[in-house]
Amino acid sequence: MRVITLLTDFGLEDGYVAAMKGVIASVAPEARVVDVTHLVPPQDVAFARFRLLTAAPFFPPGTIHVAVVDPGVGTARRAVAIRCRSGSCLVGPDNGLLSGALEADPPLAVVELSDPRFWRTDTPSATFHGRDIFAPVAAHLARGVTLEALGPAVPPDGLVTLDLRPPTPVAGGLEGAVQATDRFGNLISNVPAVLLPGNGAWRASIGGRTLPGHRTYADVPPGEALALVGSHGFVEIAVHRGDARSALGASVGDRVEIRWA
Amino acid sequence: MRVITLLTDFGLEDGYVAAMKGVIASVAPEARVVDVTHLVPPQDVAFARFRLLTAAPFFPPGTIHVAVVDPGVGTARRAVAIRCRSGSCLVGPDNGLLSGALEADPPLAVVELSDPRFWRTDTPSATFHGRDIFAPVAAHLARGVTLEALGPAVPPDGLVTLDLRPPTPVAGGLEGAVQATDRFGNLISNVPAVLLPGNGAWRASIGGRTLPGHRTYADVPPGEALALVGSHGFVEIAVHRGDARSALGASVGDRVEIRWA
Amino acid sequence: MRVITLLTDFGLEDGYVAAMKGVIASVAPEARVVDVTHLVPPQDVAFARFRLLTAAPFFPPGTIHVAVVDPGVGTARRAVAIRCRSGSCLVGPDNGLLSGALEADPPLAVVELSDPRFWRTDTPSATFHGRDIFAPVAAHLARGVTLEALGPAVPPDGLVTLDLRPPTPVAGGLEGAVQATDRFGNLISNVPAVLLPGNGAWRASIGGRTLPGHRTYADVPPGEALALVGSHGFVEIAVHRGDARSALGASVGDRVEIRWA
Repeated sequence: MRVITLLTDFGLEDGYVAAMKGVIASVAPEARVVDVTHLVPPQDVAFARFRLLTAAPFFPPGTIHVAVVDPGVGTARRAVAIRCRSGSCLVGPDNGLLSGALEADPPLAVVELSDPRFWRTDTPSATFHGRDIFAPVAAHLARGVTLEALGPAVPPDGLVTLDLRPPTPVAGGLEGAVQATDRFGNLISNVPAVLLPGNGAWRASIGGRTLPGHRTYADVPPGEALALVGSHGFVEIAVHRGDARSALGASVGDRVEIRWA
Repeated sequence: MRVITLLTDFGLEDGYVAAMKGVIASVAPEARVVDVTHLVPPQDVAFARFRLLTAAPFFPPGTIHVAVVDPGVGTARRAVAIRCRSGSCLVGPDNGLLSGALEADPPLAVVELSDPRFWRTDTPSATFHGRDIFAPVAAHLARGVTLEALGPAVPPDGLVTLDLRPPTPVAGGLEGAVQATDRFGNLISNVPAVLLPGNGAWRASIGGRTLPGHRTYADVPPGEALALVGSHGFVEIAVHRGDARSALGASVGDRVEIRWA
Repeated sequence: MRVITLLTDFGLEDGYVAAMKGVIASVAPEARVVDVTHLVPPQDVAFARFRLLTAAPFFPPGTIHVAVVDPGVGTARRAVAIRCRSGSCLVGPDNGLLSGALEADPPLAVVELSDPRFWRTDTPSATFHGRDIFAPVAAHLARGVTLEALGPAVPPDGLVTLDLRPPTPVAGGLEGAVQATDRFGNLISNVPAVLLPGNGAWRASIGGRTLPGHRTYADVPPGEALALVGSHGFVEIAVHRGDARSALGASVGDRVEIRWA
């Protein structure tokens, strides 16, 4: 039986996530459910987009990723299911949330979730499609319902994308931006490691500070700032055993400049 | 194998919930365990009661719901297991915590958990019945032990209930109260949607503010307050993309007045 | 299939824990994964040590406990897997984190995790061994790979331990220290119940306050402080329905004096 992952902004103190899991257990008792996170700041689609793109690649092919951060719930925004090149599926609102994961694992087929036979009820709550549409649709996929049965096809290039300022080559380097921070206060840029020089040294600048590129946190003394390639594959600004976000006063959207040393 | 859900005020930073799951895995290795929430404010029985009643209906029949918010642990308060009309079971202290879920799914049989053969040890911790009594009892139920084997029968009408001021009809409407808030700052009343007029318009007042009844958050501009029927089936006061609790300065227990428009 | 537990300081808002679970699902789809906690304060090895030692004993023999609080990731610190007397295994960095659990369940065999055949990749991230080394190694153990295959043997007495001031007998009692606090503000000492007199009364002092030893919280009125044996088996200072940490202004490391009454 397939794995279903859940990523929402529903938090952990209410019963919303549990209701989704109850619906899944009712439709697909054998499916294995894994939480990505439910602590996305309310309605922060960009935060959720980054978490999905960093977690999804590590799951087995065929995994069904359900992501629900959905400020437009109850409006005309589309609900979609997507089959990707890896064989995994994405299920959620078409608001850009899924677009980061699709860069690494492009969509082969997309459908709009318009067939109420695969919903929990044909009168879904206007405010909780996670429970009434997305969770049951994912459970039906896990049981073997084909993507095509869920609703009419949508052209993959019609999906909503979330446009972040992409990394731009400049003389002797690159310019990008902080796309996310994490629990440790690391500042994660949108510059992928593959754009760095293969062997050479490099440095990163943010907010007037220039930091050498290193291999790991412990390459500098505790409390000192550095740049490195994080485990997600992007250039990251960190403080060894510290919090770069507060130490450098930086945050999401700030410009990051990479220079070959 | 059956689903066991867990709802506690044990939090997520300690190892208490994990100890309960270890005990369950030791007794019923095949049982599937789902968290409802562990972030109930310490000893807040009313909060826990609402989370259980909103999550339980979405699980498959036969699910065993374990709820442990237990200020009286180690005293003479009863520990009980209950079989409900749906076939699901509730396991926990008899302190009103279970009473909300029982309104929708009435008790058919109740027993007091007095037989130590189904506990983890016959000398249970005086402070952690979750690990030593409730979790192992639930695991034995999941393996097929009958409810009746767990201890002597208790009359269902002898269970402790948590009395909230019930919604009261008044001329042209209803009066109720806020029974819970959630992560988004929504104010959830105890007025069920079934008491609203079938087709007509309605409005809700709280703290001197009167708000029109709508279908979904996006029916008003961002930042604006509204009333609607939440996904739990109760009238809710919300702010579109905002936090009604702080915007309106309201909280649990505040009076909510519903009027037909 | 065996149980794998996870204990980290990765938090719940990012996708780090999910990435570990994705790796486990890829290698050992049938393994059952249980979270101990991911809310260890960043790099707080002592906090993590206590949570592991209180949770591990309740899991079935053969469980694989993965614990990753790893300030030295990417340096020369050893990564190890340990088979304990109970048949359970511990997997993590050799930095003292595992040493508390080993006091109750001594190591029979220890290996250094140096064979990349059991890693996710032979070029692991320098900063995320949880995903690239510890999770896949645990999954291979769950599938039946022997501990000895994972790398060269290490002498068990060469493992790093975390030295806390041990409880010391004094005239008419014992002296110890607060080793941890929990969500409820309870102050948990490192004095085990087995060192208390079998039947006699006792009292505990902390920060100039002397408190009688009781059986459970409800033995004193709400708001009053007491000492008792907590569910973890250590002497604990608590406030009934209150928070001893803030009420007494005490914290980890503070001296606790036990006297026979």
